[in-house]
Amino acid sequence: MSILVLGTVALDTIKTPYGLRKNILGGSAVHFSMSCRLFTEVNLVAIVGTDFPEKHIDFLHKKGVILTSLLKNNGRTFRWEGEYKGDLNCALTRNTELGVLLDFCPNVSKEQKKIKNIFLANLDPDIQWRLLNSINSPRLVALDSMNYWIENKHKSLLRLLKRVDIYVANDQEARSLTGEDNLIKAARCLHSLGPRMILIKKGEHGALFYCNKFIFCIPAYPVDKVIDPTGAGDTFAGGFMGYLCKKDKLNEMNIKKAIAYGTVAASFNVEGFGVEKTAGLCLRDLEKRLNQFKRIVLF
Amino acid sequence: MSILVLGTVALDTIKTPYGLRKNILGGSAVHFSMSCRLFTEVNLVAIVGTDFPEKHIDFLHKKGVILTSLLKNNGRTFRWEGEYKGDLNCALTRNTELGVLLDFCPNVSKEQKKIKNIFLANLDPDIQWRLLNSINSPRLVALDSMNYWIENKHKSLLRLLKRVDIYVANDQEARSLTGEDNLIKAARCLHSLGPRMILIKKGEHGALFYCNKFIFCIPAYPVDKVIDPTGAGDTFAGGFMGYLCKKDKLNEMNIKKAIAYGTVAASFNVEGFGVEKTAGLCLRDLEKRLNQFKRIVLF
Repeated sequence: MSILVLGTVALDTIKTPYGLRKNILGGSAVHFSMSCRLFTEVNLVAIVGTDFPEKHIDFLHKKGVILTSLLKNNGRTFRWEGEYKGDLNCALTRNTELGVLLDFCPNVSKEQKKIKNIFLANLDPDIQWRLLNSINSPRLVALDSMNYWIENKHKSLLRLLKRVDIYVANDQEARSLTGEDNLIKAARCLHSLGPRMILIKKGEHGALFYCNKFIFCIPAYPVDKVIDPTGAGDTFAGGFMGYLCKKDKLNEMNIKKAIAYGTVAASFNVEGFGVEKTAGLCLRDLEKRLNQFKRIVLF
Repeated sequence: MSILVLGTVALDTIKTPYGLRKNILGGSAVHFSMSCRLFTEVNLVAIVGTDFPEKHIDFLHKKGVILTSLLKNNGRTFRWEGEYKGDLNCALTRNTELGVLLDFCPNVSKEQKKIKNIFLANLDPDIQWRLLNSINSPRLVALDSMNYWIENKHKSLLRLLKRVDIYVANDQEARSLTGEDNLIKAARCLHSLGPRMILIKKGEHGALFYCNKFIFCIPAYPVDKVIDPTGAGDTFAGGFMGYLCKKDKLNEMNIKKAIAYGTVAASFNVEGFGVEKTAGLCLRDLEKRLNQFKRIVLF
């Protein structure tokens, strides 16, 4: 089954101990697509400005991403400037230019309204809500957000949480939304807000999944040269959702495997700037690393 | 095979969000023994003062810990005062009183010199060195240390590292000793300093094992009520070493299982103040939780 991802397409300027890249292709929907496309057809819903390079459109098209709902408006593309220092776990935002994102009103085709799997990548929860309203009868809805919306659109986010199946949050977000330091407690609290599944991303420390029936903990794939972690969380979500789209049942085994796929997908992402590494991936690469990962984590 | 542990026996005063405990039984050798005793006979090498309550001696004795090399000197027992806030990952030391530790010169019996498995828990590396010299022909030597010795007895620690098989460090220590932020790189660097096995403890994020032949990552057992993390690292090491003492071969499977046992042992430790929880454990409790843990981490 195909998937629809609502999110950002961005031009990122990123500085890490390994170098500086200016205005490279980025954004939550792009990173998500890079891993998700390995499993299923990805329909991207986003907006860019007139300054957005045509080569990026060509690139996404060649990667099989469906771009019929990628709007192009007058104005500048969303831009993010960030820097990573030391252990590269935390980005320091240097500048954010929303540009055309300010007036983004997602619009999907009649065909896309029938899509069953929806990933609402980090964006204004009111825009996520609107998009969700336009979908006929979703089977699986997952949501990502960020601290900015937790603080500034709290009510909108809470309203939205009641309608999603999976809430994908990082540890900071889980803690700030719930006021709980302990992540199990935080997950339980998030669960009580509506989503029947909670997936907490912990960066280099892996991920934690919580639902009524089971808990699952997984470490990150150990990477000794983290070049640029930008988009790792979205790449993780893309692998996770992509695998689930291919499965009929959302059972314990499939969910655990999906999280493992997301984990190895994210490990490729951090090994290069932007989509440098994930752009060239095929499913076999993911499967090969998953097998290495099994030796690293199973006992 | 039995084990000899050199470390501290302490009177701890601990404040956490769950309460305050004054002068409770603690110390690296004690916490280590609480889990290690479930697998093998533990010979404790440490020192206390004349103020050390007899009831603690009785308690350790009843737990099967061999106390023939627990010295009692004139003076006060080593005392540590600490506080945990927020996520309980990091202790704030309020006070340290070395007391009789200042003149500690470990002395083991002729029989104990024949012991094959040695754990050098956190202590002055010169004292650890001296103890190691008195052992006839160890089969497996593991070492723990702390930032204080990394900074203040750097040369002694480096000298010692050349003679140990396993270096057990927490992530902070691994980073500060090597100057590497990335833990894989840090592990590789520690490995180059002598120990053929490196075991990095990451608190609530689990552990990372590194040797020539394989890498192993494991999350912590998820605990939703962390009462007091004091001694979790030593309890972890005790479960790990205890399991290895029972095995002839130090192969990949046994090492991984040993780390898993250490992980679940540590999870009990944090559920109570001091040795409140680990004192009552039997091997069956550990095995039961290990089985729950498998469902939480295996896929």
